[in-house]
Amino acid sequence: MQTQTQQAIHTEAKSLLERFMHIRSRSEEICAPLQPEDYVVQPVVDVSPPKWHLGHTTWFFEEFVLDGNLPGYKRYNEQFAYVFNSYYETVGKRILRTNRGNLTRPSVEEVYRYRSWVYEHMERYLQEEEIGEEMQQIVELGLQHEQQHQELLIYDIKYILGNNPLLPAYAPRPETAAATPAAAPEPLRMLPIEEGVYEIGWQHPNRFCFDNELGRHKVYLQAYSIANRLVTNREYLEFMEAGGYGYFRHWLSEAWEWVKQEKIAAPYHWHKVEGAWHRYTMHGLEPLNLDEPVTHISFYEADAFAKWKGLRLPTEQEWEVACLRLSPEPPATANFQESRLYEPAVRATANLQFWGDAWEWTASAYRPYPYFSEAEGAVGEYNGKFMINQMVLRGGSCATPRDHIRATYRNFFNPHLRWMYSGIRLAQHI
Amino acid sequence: MQTQTQQAIHTEAKSLLERFMHIRSRSEEICAPLQPEDYVVQPVVDVSPPKWHLGHTTWFFEEFVLDGNLPGYKRYNEQFAYVFNSYYETVGKRILRTNRGNLTRPSVEEVYRYRSWVYEHMERYLQEEEIGEEMQQIVELGLQHEQQHQELLIYDIKYILGNNPLLPAYAPRPETAAATPAAAPEPLRMLPIEEGVYEIGWQHPNRFCFDNELGRHKVYLQAYSIANRLVTNREYLEFMEAGGYGYFRHWLSEAWEWVKQEKIAAPYHWHKVEGAWHRYTMHGLEPLNLDEPVTHISFYEADAFAKWKGLRLPTEQEWEVACLRLSPEPPATANFQESRLYEPAVRATANLQFWGDAWEWTASAYRPYPYFSEAEGAVGEYNGKFMINQMVLRGGSCATPRDHIRATYRNFFNPHLRWMYSGIRLAQHI
Amino acid sequence: MQTQTQQAIHTEAKSLLERFMHIRSRSEEICAPLQPEDYVVQPVVDVSPPKWHLGHTTWFFEEFVLDGNLPGYKRYNEQFAYVFNSYYETVGKRILRTNRGNLTRPSVEEVYRYRSWVYEHMERYLQEEEIGEEMQQIVELGLQHEQQHQELLIYDIKYILGNNPLLPAYAPRPETAAATPAAAPEPLRMLPIEEGVYEIGWQHPNRFCFDNELGRHKVYLQAYSIANRLVTNREYLEFMEAGGYGYFRHWLSEAWEWVKQEKIAAPYHWHKVEGAWHRYTMHGLEPLNLDEPVTHISFYEADAFAKWKGLRLPTEQEWEVACLRLSPEPPATANFQESRLYEPAVRATANLQFWGDAWEWTASAYRPYPYFSEAEGAVGEYNGKFMINQMVLRGGSCATPRDHIRATYRNFFNPHLRWMYSGIRLAQHI
Amino acid sequence: MQTQTQQAIHTEAKSLLERFMHIRSRSEEICAPLQPEDYVVQPVVDVSPPKWHLGHTTWFFEEFVLDGNLPGYKRYNEQFAYVFNSYYETVGKRILRTNRGNLTRPSVEEVYRYRSWVYEHMERYLQEEEIGEEMQQIVELGLQHEQQHQELLIYDIKYILGNNPLLPAYAPRPETAAATPAAAPEPLRMLPIEEGVYEIGWQHPNRFCFDNELGRHKVYLQAYSIANRLVTNREYLEFMEAGGYGYFRHWLSEAWEWVKQEKIAAPYHWHKVEGAWHRYTMHGLEPLNLDEPVTHISFYEADAFAKWKGLRLPTEQEWEVACLRLSPEPPATANFQESRLYEPAVRATANLQFWGDAWEWTASAYRPYPYFSEAEGAVGEYNGKFMINQMVLRGGSCATPRDHIRATYRNFFNPHLRWMYSGIRLAQHI
Repeated sequence: MQTQTQQAIHTEAKSLLERFMHIRSRSEEICAPLQPEDYVVQPVVDVSPPKWHLGHTTWFFEEFVLDGNLPGYKRYNEQFAYVFNSYYETVGKRILRTNRGNLTRPSVEEVYRYRSWVYEHMERYLQEEEIGEEMQQIVELGLQHEQQHQELLIYDIKYILGNNPLLPAYAPRPETAAATPAAAPEPLRMLPIEEGVYEIGWQHPNRFCFDNELGRHKVYLQAYSIANRLVTNREYLEFMEAGGYGYFRHWLSEAWEWVKQEKIAAPYHWHKVEGAWHRYTMHGLEPLNLDEPVTHISFYEADAFAKWKGLRLPTEQEWEVACLRLSPEPPATANFQESRLYEPAVRATANLQFWGDAWEWTASAYRPYPYFSEAEGAVGEYNGKFMINQMVLRGGSCATPRDHIRATYRNFFNPHLRWMYSGIRLAQHI
Repeated sequence: MQTQTQQAIHTEAKSLLERFMHIRSRSEEICAPLQPEDYVVQPVVDVSPPKWHLGHTTWFFEEFVLDGNLPGYKRYNEQFAYVFNSYYETVGKRILRTNRGNLTRPSVEEVYRYRSWVYEHMERYLQEEEIGEEMQQIVELGLQHEQQHQELLIYDIKYILGNNPLLPAYAPRPETAAATPAAAPEPLRMLPIEEGVYEIGWQHPNRFCFDNELGRHKVYLQAYSIANRLVTNREYLEFMEAGGYGYFRHWLSEAWEWVKQEKIAAPYHWHKVEGAWHRYTMHGLEPLNLDEPVTHISFYEADAFAKWKGLRLPTEQEWEVACLRLSPEPPATANFQESRLYEPAVRATANLQFWGDAWEWTASAYRPYPYFSEAEGAVGEYNGKFMINQMVLRGGSCATPRDHIRATYRNFFNPHLRWMYSGIRLAQHI
Repeated sequence: MQTQTQQAIHTEAKSLLERFMHIRSRSEEICAPLQPEDYVVQPVVDVSPPKWHLGHTTWFFEEFVLDGNLPGYKRYNEQFAYVFNSYYETVGKRILRTNRGNLTRPSVEEVYRYRSWVYEHMERYLQEEEIGEEMQQIVELGLQHEQQHQELLIYDIKYILGNNPLLPAYAPRPETAAATPAAAPEPLRMLPIEEGVYEIGWQHPNRFCFDNELGRHKVYLQAYSIANRLVTNREYLEFMEAGGYGYFRHWLSEAWEWVKQEKIAAPYHWHKVEGAWHRYTMHGLEPLNLDEPVTHISFYEADAFAKWKGLRLPTEQEWEVACLRLSPEPPATANFQESRLYEPAVRATANLQFWGDAWEWTASAYRPYPYFSEAEGAVGEYNGKFMINQMVLRGGSCATPRDHIRATYRNFFNPHLRWMYSGIRLAQHI
Repeated sequence: MQTQTQQAIHTEAKSLLERFMHIRSRSEEICAPLQPEDYVVQPVVDVSPPKWHLGHTTWFFEEFVLDGNLPGYKRYNEQFAYVFNSYYETVGKRILRTNRGNLTRPSVEEVYRYRSWVYEHMERYLQEEEIGEEMQQIVELGLQHEQQHQELLIYDIKYILGNNPLLPAYAPRPETAAATPAAAPEPLRMLPIEEGVYEIGWQHPNRFCFDNELGRHKVYLQAYSIANRLVTNREYLEFMEAGGYGYFRHWLSEAWEWVKQEKIAAPYHWHKVEGAWHRYTMHGLEPLNLDEPVTHISFYEADAFAKWKGLRLPTEQEWEVACLRLSPEPPATANFQESRLYEPAVRATANLQFWGDAWEWTASAYRPYPYFSEAEGAVGEYNGKFMINQMVLRGGSCATPRDHIRATYRNFFNPHLRWMYSGIRLAQHI
């Protein structure tokens, strides 16, 4: 039986304020290179306008923290609840997701004023008020939520710019990234894990996790082995050149419909320029680096690639057990958001790439763990309601803040999506 | 490591012929009450015209058995491969699924002539030829395949007639069904199963199963309890009357969109007539029998109902372990296709309803078992390619032949579908 | 000023009965070669199932004549009003047009019983009752309406069978049609008409016409010339071989979108078989006869062809004036429904083809004449409400009954449609 | 016979430069109140982003004037031809119309730099080069084209801001508009025009017109009368309050589908706030002024309103003859773009409102005049290719530059559109 409190945390209010300041300013730093026009559009339904992300994460603090808790707090603009609510049915009408990209007002400037307004009041609230554990948890949830939106911001900015025929760069490649190893990554090796009963799920009752990681429980794993690194562009190109996109037997039935319907023939953001494969990166159009991990692929493609290789994707349980066994903590060379590279990097020596670079599609559908239950109220709408027709991804990406990820972290996307940094790790039974 | 052969069977050719004759004539018996017009249409994409089912199951034997194996065999009509192939990409062009209901030729009469032609040649083949084990397996697969289409035939006939504003009956209620118990079903009780390591999957190497049941493997189950019967119309009506379809918190996010978009407010085939709920049955429009199991519901509805009850659906592993523990064989009162009732029945005493009546939605997404691998060639396209965005159902229904079902049998449907006989069994952790 | 009564007719009741018997049996004769399955389907929204046509034309007499006028008349089935109403909003709910092809009941047999029932009661009504002028007009309208549906029946049957990969023939080519002239049609000549004021519209107040032909009025025509015959398959093929479908400048903007979207590259019912153009006819697949008029083309194609030729389509006013001047009555060789050919024929000597063979697209949008007004009640829903986004066609086709057509008759279709017998006559200003 | 040259003009190059400077700066003045974000989006397919209008009108001069005519001219950016081409198939690939609103680059600033670049080169070209008559015509066409886009800019800005839940004003109501007459407009009177032969079309061979106005020709008009002003909001509200949107008999068949499908119940930009009708204007949300002309209505609505009144819309020929007879030149009180009101105004005394305020839907489909022919090359793609499924509107609107409109000017829109300033003038036969 499970008796864990849901998001038990013992962070001091002061350090909460520091975290608040740090994380909030990080969102703004991500947007700094944008021009006002870049903040506005929604080229496909899965992408949100950057100014919407900035407003929505702000609204979270106004709605769930300030309103009703900070004495005398007055909302910046009553209508913003309508404009910036994303999907919380509990808290009133929300704007249709497909209409987000048509709203030119509030302007970018006004969204920043909104952020300042909420920032100032949060500062007062976190400094002056007696904050109970429950409110601390909600503030922490708001920060984790903002970190998730930072990651989406990066995907969405890349989509918005990469969808433009002018292919403008977001920013120059950071100088530190020049230190990228020139050497090719190690050959693919399969690392064995023995069969047996393992425990899965979050185990630190007093540290933050999302509700979907709770319900620590036992699983039985058959013996398996798992790759020592992510699949590279070179390996993926072999699949392409072997006609992988043209032969139905590699593909799930609905994946094959998707390939034909959408005329899919390469990862997203790849362009063939004068006979040579390039990919659009946050630093502009670049020749494909064959040693980098492949990214911007759907589950369909990851699954087809693995089948073509005679292997498969790991389940999320296999992934978690292997990660905790082989690479329990991120190595120093792990490539997270903090590198400002915003692209997967060539594998550094001894980095098994369980952490950062690209989210790893698993073979597992996103379904509740045993003992899973949703919280009451709007925060309970966080995860559970998405547990259908999505696949689990693990390990974080080059757009994930380092302090946001855990070995038990369960990310999820629909199997056809690929605008995010997604990649492939192979597995097999032994 | 797994070394099972995929569909090992040791049936004698002679009994195969008997089975062939029996199963084939059963398909025709199902269609006997139809008028020629009823054989033709496809009111929604998931429904196929009855004459297509009759032709497609026949084409299977022509394509995979007779052609190339029976010396001198000549196809009945070369174009039928095109008309009656369903989804086997391996064997050439196929007609678009959405166009099936527009084909008035071959006529029903000609489809029956096609069936006779293939019947006669199969009779010769099964009597005269030396049939190796592989071909025996393929014939067996063809028969199992035909039984699956019998089940679909029944769903589709019910949809075609029930979609007609005249609501014509398929056939009168069979007299034997009058023996239905007048007494209300037992109260809902939750039967406990202790935690531990269990084995899952097909274990009889020399008896038929589908490839998706293979790969017998260990799982760890947390302690749980499972209901002693299916949810009844009475219980489901309570959910409806409590506003279940109108309150978003019971529903998965995409389920809620579906409810609003499709204006879902009751199980499929339910009609409110002068203030009273009725349901269309194969015997015409009838007042709702509150004691019968609820059916024609989507996974979305099953999941929402369970949440509203404070319970959940069992996983497929929990279902299989509980079935083998509590009701390892179908009881004499189990309600299968052979009852000709074609509707779920009020629970008979001591019948836990694991078998027949209605397929039970589980909490499990349809994904491959460990060690799963697809066969080579077209028969390998049978199951694996559908293992995405579908949910597993267990236990068979009132449209399933009794000799077709097993405790390990994995059926699957998209979570929004409900034209089949689907129902709910509840579970919880303890 | 216009004071015409709308559909003034002075037919005797007795001859009405004869016409009734003749026209009704003609509809049944058209359907005689069908198999029951052919009566049911609706492969595209514009096609209706043949049994729907048979029921709908019958319902017209029940709804507008028998019910309330024949003492003691009892409807055959109250629900048929719902099933067989097409678009008369005035008289209650109607089944969605897109769902017509999913209704297998009432069966074909029952529809024929319905026809017999209404036939018997109409016989009694027309023999025994005192029928006022207004009711005579409504019966006449019902017969004209049935003739229109006969024409649609022929299009729809051709579509249903021609859409089937087996391409079954409707019936063998009639022997009389063997008399088709072997000689090629005359060269295209342009016949001049001088400029001036002309009168347009129906002028016989005591003979039947549709309301859209009324409002006889003056028009001024600039001098023009008009072709002496329809465009042939040979001429149309020249357009195709000159790349006509591939060069945007021939096409209206939305036509060009349609060509690309729908991948249009030939008239409907054309098939290229082993390098040679064939067309599906009511007599099966036949090599293209280059001397026959081109048919099954959209307004878009007619307009593009004319532009490519450096000419244009005539306006409906030009067409009517030219017809009355050059061919005021159908010649004996005119190819109407009565020929049972159901395909346009090679032009006979001296037949200018203003009558029969193929409806001729005009350059005129379908808009009301001056003084047009709709009748009160449901019969007023006949024409006026369709006067938007449609183009006028003139002259009748090989599917039109000879006694149904007039020089002033205004047919109309959306510009993209082409399942009907539509053709091209060229014109130009001089 | 017609021998007019298409766009014969004898404007001096110098005054062309002055016109160029004036018209170009007017476009920028229209955009001056916008924030950068407002320039970017495309909320529906018919609306284009303001920065696209600014770029597209600039590209016209680069593509058709500077490139190849100004010695040594180098395009500002080769890719802009792709980004800013609208629909000229002749001159290469163009961006999909539905993707225009997703392009954040080139930025607004860069579009203005592009305008400056082209402005400077056009200035040089118009001052220094010998400009033949053909090039003068093309420059003039470019200016007329820019004026058309000014009008669209105003519609689109109104749509973009009026679609935003914050309903921001574009600009305050201009003070001059305070002079709006307080008195209600005159009662509706019908002004008679006698029957006879009239001449239609442009008659000044040496002044600019569009090709669709050419082909001056005779028409015969039956006697009719036409209203002395536009229909007001008060009159339209009577239609609404009489249930006009709910009774099918007022509506064309496809209009009725549209009303039901889109849930249309009032003109576009109308909002009911606390029980009172308001409309969004360029000056913000305002209570409905009952004396102003109704605007933002579709042809469907104009036609339904007229039917409800027992009247009809005038044909474009009737409109042109009446305008030239009753109000051949715009009165001083005509409300054009120059008033900066950007909304229809209450009718001033003696202003029959044939000019300005709102485009008047006519009963005429947009089809070619006799003798119409398209020019060679890309400029020939201007009008002719849109002559299908559109209705003609006459008279200009409050967004039309006064020197852009003529009595013969033929505007056109699809019958369901209503984001433009469209209104109603009534007519009838006498």
